[in-house]
Amino acid sequence: MKKTTAAALALTLGSGGAIADAGSQRGPLSESDMQAVSPALERYADNRLVSKLWKGTDLSPRDRSLITVAAVIARNQTILLPEQFELALDNGVTPAELSETITHLAFYAGWGNAVAATAVAKEVFAARGVRADQLPGAKEPLLPLDEKAEAARAARVDKSIGTAAPGLVRDTTDVLFRDLWLRPGLTPRDRSLITVSALIANGQDQQIPPHLNRAMDNGLTQEQASGALSHLAYYAGWPNAFSAAPVFKKVFEQRETK
Amino acid sequence: MKKTTAAALALTLGSGGAIADAGSQRGPLSESDMQAVSPALERYADNRLVSKLWKGTDLSPRDRSLITVAAVIARNQTILLPEQFELALDNGVTPAELSETITHLAFYAGWGNAVAATAVAKEVFAARGVRADQLPGAKEPLLPLDEKAEAARAARVDKSIGTAAPGLVRDTTDVLFRDLWLRPGLTPRDRSLITVSALIANGQDQQIPPHLNRAMDNGLTQEQASGALSHLAYYAGWPNAFSAAPVFKKVFEQRETK
Amino acid sequence: MKKTTAAALALTLGSGGAIADAGSQRGPLSESDMQAVSPALERYADNRLVSKLWKGTDLSPRDRSLITVAAVIARNQTILLPEQFELALDNGVTPAELSETITHLAFYAGWGNAVAATAVAKEVFAARGVRADQLPGAKEPLLPLDEKAEAARAARVDKSIGTAAPGLVRDTTDVLFRDLWLRPGLTPRDRSLITVSALIANGQDQQIPPHLNRAMDNGLTQEQASGALSHLAYYAGWPNAFSAAPVFKKVFEQRETK
Repeated sequence: MKKTTAAALALTLGSGGAIADAGSQRGPLSESDMQAVSPALERYADNRLVSKLWKGTDLSPRDRSLITVAAVIARNQTILLPEQFELALDNGVTPAELSETITHLAFYAGWGNAVAATAVAKEVFAARGVRADQLPGAKEPLLPLDEKAEAARAARVDKSIGTAAPGLVRDTTDVLFRDLWLRPGLTPRDRSLITVSALIANGQDQQIPPHLNRAMDNGLTQEQASGALSHLAYYAGWPNAFSAAPVFKKVFEQRETK
Repeated sequence: MKKTTAAALALTLGSGGAIADAGSQRGPLSESDMQAVSPALERYADNRLVSKLWKGTDLSPRDRSLITVAAVIARNQTILLPEQFELALDNGVTPAELSETITHLAFYAGWGNAVAATAVAKEVFAARGVRADQLPGAKEPLLPLDEKAEAARAARVDKSIGTAAPGLVRDTTDVLFRDLWLRPGLTPRDRSLITVSALIANGQDQQIPPHLNRAMDNGLTQEQASGALSHLAYYAGWPNAFSAAPVFKKVFEQRETK
Repeated sequence: MKKTTAAALALTLGSGGAIADAGSQRGPLSESDMQAVSPALERYADNRLVSKLWKGTDLSPRDRSLITVAAVIARNQTILLPEQFELALDNGVTPAELSETITHLAFYAGWGNAVAATAVAKEVFAARGVRADQLPGAKEPLLPLDEKAEAARAARVDKSIGTAAPGLVRDTTDVLFRDLWLRPGLTPRDRSLITVSALIANGQDQQIPPHLNRAMDNGLTQEQASGALSHLAYYAGWPNAFSAAPVFKKVFEQRETK
């Protein structure tokens, strides 16, 4: 089948290769389902998403899958979840990384989004025979913490909102930055990439700068960040991409003049 | 049946007539389903939505359906989709226009929203016997383009975000303004109306001014724009309407002093 | 069963007691469902949400349920609705209050959110044998209105957006402040608490100040408001809580200097 061939090619070429499995981008619908409502939508799926967007060279197919999965979870787009999970696994996102992505987004997109994603991933993992030993453990040895940078972050947050929400400040330190962010199941760069993607997907522009800076500090290039933003226009809608774009621009400019 | 009678009356009166089919506004629930949880919600459905909101004379029933459908798709409110699609068809939105609305919102609300809407519209179209030749084609002869205005728009966007997101700028031109927006399946005025409705529905106030101006340039009156905003308070929630209102006010004032 | 014991304890201790039923926080998933995708998510559900968050003493279990239900309805997180409705009833939210919460959020989160919540609550109420006479009536004798304060509110809104959206201004007075807000099924303090929770859940920061002030005027303490914000980080996602926090801080500071 087409999918298997593409997956095989991807294996041959490695995840940096331009040959990506692009899925059908129709979720659970067939070509004729879509044409029964909108032949134009079917054309866009095929001509734009499958044939162009997913073949773009500014992002690896794996990155494209990571950010799409993040957007779809963050927006609770359950109809797209099964295909995008399959596609992510075909494009080189490991089950462990997909698991960790869902866990991470429980905190960045909301608990219910992660529960809904888990219900779908369970079926996808079962169908592929993913075993327990392929998943990140409940507790893992954590990545080393940059104590100085973390202390500075915590102080900054405490100063700005500590009196208003001490519980939030405390949990941000204990649950997020001294636990979740240090879990080894995703590289810091990938963790930042899905965080920024979720922020764009939900129009949370105000929170983008620190996370985009962190992503770039952790190795995301400007070309990749820009490619992610352009990709997400399709899944988060143009208005969310257009609101995020000036924020990206400002971050890029500030990093250049540093 | 009630629905058929209302549809017949609408045909007699034309889409400008005040007699609208207003549906039940309960989605798939029955009167007694709703009363088993909230007799008050049932009262509001009947007394406020069906008997007043949908009978308001500031908007035609067709406009009211177009903006409700846009809001419900934009918010991925799948439980309301079937009734609102039926109602739209009863109120004079053609299957072709509904098809094109879904296609348009793939780009303005996100791909997954359009896929979810397509899955529902497929059933509604099948039950009504909508045929392929009633739908807009995958590719249609495009409306004439105002090259000068489009060049100005493209230059403005390129200047503001071109360095940060060249791919986004390119696709905005190629996919949206030189393709989607020129498709003849919706009048420019209707296309703008559903775009503005989707922006209100998702709280994307920042993006409203250019689209509201475009809508009014294309024939949407201030009374209709204002009526759409008031109508959408019910479907997008009061907070989204209240955040959009000052933006509308500013656009109205700027147009008056021009 | 665990649930019954917890409910019995809660009855013994009163709703102010620290012993709360905290549910499983897995929605419809089982422990092993969750572990098949993410053992870490299961650990967070158990160690963080069930064992810590829901046992926090800054909010009563009943308040915690009210705000969680509000957030889950406002975000249309249907997968969490059944468990959170059950939990709310176990934690001392009466069926009448849950009914009224859904009705209220029809206007603050959007009509479709309330319809989706009604479809789920219907099943929960039926399973518990909730009778019609336990629900608030379609029309109830309204709470007394502070005519002077309401006239001031109406004048303020009319001045700021009246020319742009007269229909919205009219319905805000007639449907919301002279009807919905005066229904006796929820105390004004609880009504404000769920409103603020819905605003945080959907990132509608701009609308928070008047509603947070109203909540505190109606008896919500700063500690409770702050506790609600911290709690909601888990259900609305950290970015929404972080965007709301500076708004909360400013409101708290302005009230202190008055």
